[in-house]
Amino acid sequence: MSESAPEAPLPDKEKDIGEWYDGVLERAELLDTRYGVKGFVVYRPNAMRIVKRIYRMFEEELERGGHMPMLLPLVIPMANFRRETEHVKGFEDQVFYITEAGGRPLDEKLIVRPTSETAIYPMFSLWIHSYGDMPMRLYQSVAVYRHETKATRPLLRGREFLWIETHDAFEDEAGAMAQIREDLEVAKKVYDGLGLAFLVVEREPYDKFPGAESSYAYDALLPNGNVLQIATTHYLGDHFTKAFDVSFTDRDGNSRNPRTTCFGVGISRTLAALVMTHGDRYGLVLPFGLSVHDLVIVPIPHRGSVDEVIGKARQLEAELRGAGFDVYMDGSEESPGDKFYRWEMVGVPVRIEVGRREVEGGYVTLFRRDMRTRERVKDGDLQARIRALSSEISENLRRRARERLDGSISNAASREDVMRLAQEGRIIRANFCGMDECAREIKEETGYEVRGRRVDVEEKPTGNCAWCGRPAARVVYMAKAY
Amino acid sequence: MSESAPEAPLPDKEKDIGEWYDGVLERAELLDTRYGVKGFVVYRPNAMRIVKRIYRMFEEELERGGHMPMLLPLVIPMANFRRETEHVKGFEDQVFYITEAGGRPLDEKLIVRPTSETAIYPMFSLWIHSYGDMPMRLYQSVAVYRHETKATRPLLRGREFLWIETHDAFEDEAGAMAQIREDLEVAKKVYDGLGLAFLVVEREPYDKFPGAESSYAYDALLPNGNVLQIATTHYLGDHFTKAFDVSFTDRDGNSRNPRTTCFGVGISRTLAALVMTHGDRYGLVLPFGLSVHDLVIVPIPHRGSVDEVIGKARQLEAELRGAGFDVYMDGSEESPGDKFYRWEMVGVPVRIEVGRREVEGGYVTLFRRDMRTRERVKDGDLQARIRALSSEISENLRRRARERLDGSISNAASREDVMRLAQEGRIIRANFCGMDECAREIKEETGYEVRGRRVDVEEKPTGNCAWCGRPAARVVYMAKAY
Repeated sequence: MSESAPEAPLPDKEKDIGEWYDGVLERAELLDTRYGVKGFVVYRPNAMRIVKRIYRMFEEELERGGHMPMLLPLVIPMANFRRETEHVKGFEDQVFYITEAGGRPLDEKLIVRPTSETAIYPMFSLWIHSYGDMPMRLYQSVAVYRHETKATRPLLRGREFLWIETHDAFEDEAGAMAQIREDLEVAKKVYDGLGLAFLVVEREPYDKFPGAESSYAYDALLPNGNVLQIATTHYLGDHFTKAFDVSFTDRDGNSRNPRTTCFGVGISRTLAALVMTHGDRYGLVLPFGLSVHDLVIVPIPHRGSVDEVIGKARQLEAELRGAGFDVYMDGSEESPGDKFYRWEMVGVPVRIEVGRREVEGGYVTLFRRDMRTRERVKDGDLQARIRALSSEISENLRRRARERLDGSISNAASREDVMRLAQEGRIIRANFCGMDECAREIKEETGYEVRGRRVDVEEKPTGNCAWCGRPAARVVYMAKAY
Repeated sequence: MSESAPEAPLPDKEKDIGEWYDGVLERAELLDTRYGVKGFVVYRPNAMRIVKRIYRMFEEELERGGHMPMLLPLVIPMANFRRETEHVKGFEDQVFYITEAGGRPLDEKLIVRPTSETAIYPMFSLWIHSYGDMPMRLYQSVAVYRHETKATRPLLRGREFLWIETHDAFEDEAGAMAQIREDLEVAKKVYDGLGLAFLVVEREPYDKFPGAESSYAYDALLPNGNVLQIATTHYLGDHFTKAFDVSFTDRDGNSRNPRTTCFGVGISRTLAALVMTHGDRYGLVLPFGLSVHDLVIVPIPHRGSVDEVIGKARQLEAELRGAGFDVYMDGSEESPGDKFYRWEMVGVPVRIEVGRREVEGGYVTLFRRDMRTRERVKDGDLQARIRALSSEISENLRRRARERLDGSISNAASREDVMRLAQEGRIIRANFCGMDECAREIKEETGYEVRGRRVDVEEKPTGNCAWCGRPAARVVYMAKAY
């Protein structure tokens, strides 16, 4: 951690996102990718603080909506894993198996959870008997394990990734679908708080979660124009409750299968989206509440004014801490320039610079990380200005992300439009027939995926499929997916 | 969750701790042991809420002392696992191996972490170069996996258990030993907050953590007189830094190996100790901040006074919530008796009963769970009384636990004393020679283990070893360990 700080800025994010991303993960000390097992990384403190904060934001929202925390085992018996046909087909090529312990083979191979449907449903069959037992809303915050064979990338695609999964059971479809809407609302609240921009879409039928009736997703925009799925919620109908014999006595005394949903939030991917959406050549850019500190004070002592400068810096630190701000006065031996570099790299949203002029003039110089601009603020106005900046920075990040996303979308009316816009790396909005084979052709010829129809705004198709010319079933968004 | 509540009290804890424990885990809906894989249990919401709270208490104390959160992968490559000789000997019979993924054998078997020394030290060798890089204090909150071959018991001995582990590096032994003292202080603060009683001991040399120079432990007393190790901290010297080539340039420019420590807090076991220490025939007993709610209001409506009673209950709920209390008004259809049963079972510390008399008299009836006593409190005094109860209950639990522990300890001066007191199930305090073979004999003849010398109070030996009569090296405590 003492390597002398490399002072050159990072590469241009828009030009070489790959190199920028690797650079910021290393220089902001977020991850260490040298652990030595493919697809597994070490989360360093600067990443874990953000991860814990994102977990807390989601958990608070989920609990407000009636979800309760639980914890299922890491391992799933083979017999359970095999019970829902679609589901096992979707995951069996990706699961890790524990086969030995203490040097001897286990009696039954154990699956390392790739997701926990096949762990929770046997429990649902023990817990759910009557309509009075529902709605049942449970969540767990865990890591899941998938043996990805595609190239792995830290946080984006790994063999171990952090997430939250909910498992909810309802008397009927209406209850379940209301939950889906609430899940989308939970994600919106948190992602708005993080200043992310996203498309909320219903996935096409052939693109659902294995075992789902319908799937809904949050796609975030990456700086290279690709989209990244960061959260999904699924209506599972009675697929799993039938497969696992979960039934209840309804209000009329009849035995029925509950309707269920599951909501998965990729915490690792949300961190990746946060880093990539806001970051710049100087490192991370974060709203208040996510970086190591919200405020750092950097004293800039000159000969003859050392005591006054340090004195004012200390006094400000005490006052701001007393007022409840998360502030740190960097009194280390480093040069002010090195300190600027280091605190910018980790995304501290506001820096307070105190030099001789600030002491004499009764003001401070505030540096806001999101704009990289400085302003003078009178000592007496400081706390009010910081409070205002806290929301200004959040809003600015959210607005910039939203504008970038909106500006990345183009309408396509024809196959030629689709081909050309894909060439240009645009997100494509188009009328679509809804046919699996059209989506496959588009993927083959452009590398683009049909990501689905938006569910946060209503968009009615007004013509024919841009690709095949048959009548359009809906307006969809097409993009290159990470 | 709708099974009609079984109203009979639990068995007597002192008479049949096993049956009591199974009963409370099930009836307070803490765990479900029917998951179907030996040694793995499902944590239900009532347990997870407490688990999350205990994690937060420890994490806050650790961060206050300069620890930073991190996350290491679940898996450890075989080659790393084998590098510290003592360590691998201590764990190799217990580790789970991941050997396959997606139906094909892995190139290299992976260990599922039983503890993370062999994961972090390769990282330390990348992160630590100079004395300026230390002290390095990191922690992670994770589950660990050990293929226990002894009989497993929920929370007490499982194949998956929740814990916190710290990994700290220092320039020298003095820094490391100061950390050991701080670790013990952190545990003391949290355990005092939970009202637990404990012996803080240095383990005997032959009883150390595999790879440690010296080991220190928190032993909690179980109701049957056994002790349960709930936290340990270890001075690892340079064993691991040498084995993993971790070195740094010291203040004089010389290359040296850091001295390291690790601190493991068993969160599952702490929950077990919490349940067993305070619980009674009516279920869990908990201090404020750990149960589902701190306060429940149970209205007891009578014919002719339903509106007034419900009205007062609602008003109290609003007032108490407004004042920041965690309160729930149970307006369900159940009978008051069923509500009493249910909220006592999950350990809600204070119940507020509101009936016709309470409405007419301008008071409420408070029931405190720890004593199972009722008192009348005037409406105007309610908030102050609840605030007072919050600390009174904590202190009462802590005092009771401490008295039980103190009252369980007897002095032994001779082999006959040891034999007799072991027969009686007492914790034994005795002069001890410090010889491995004596400890082995004691274990063979009495089933008791020498748990070590206390480090929280100084106790000087004043004679000969109670067992063998040779000169005593220290005063130790002997007990049957869970």
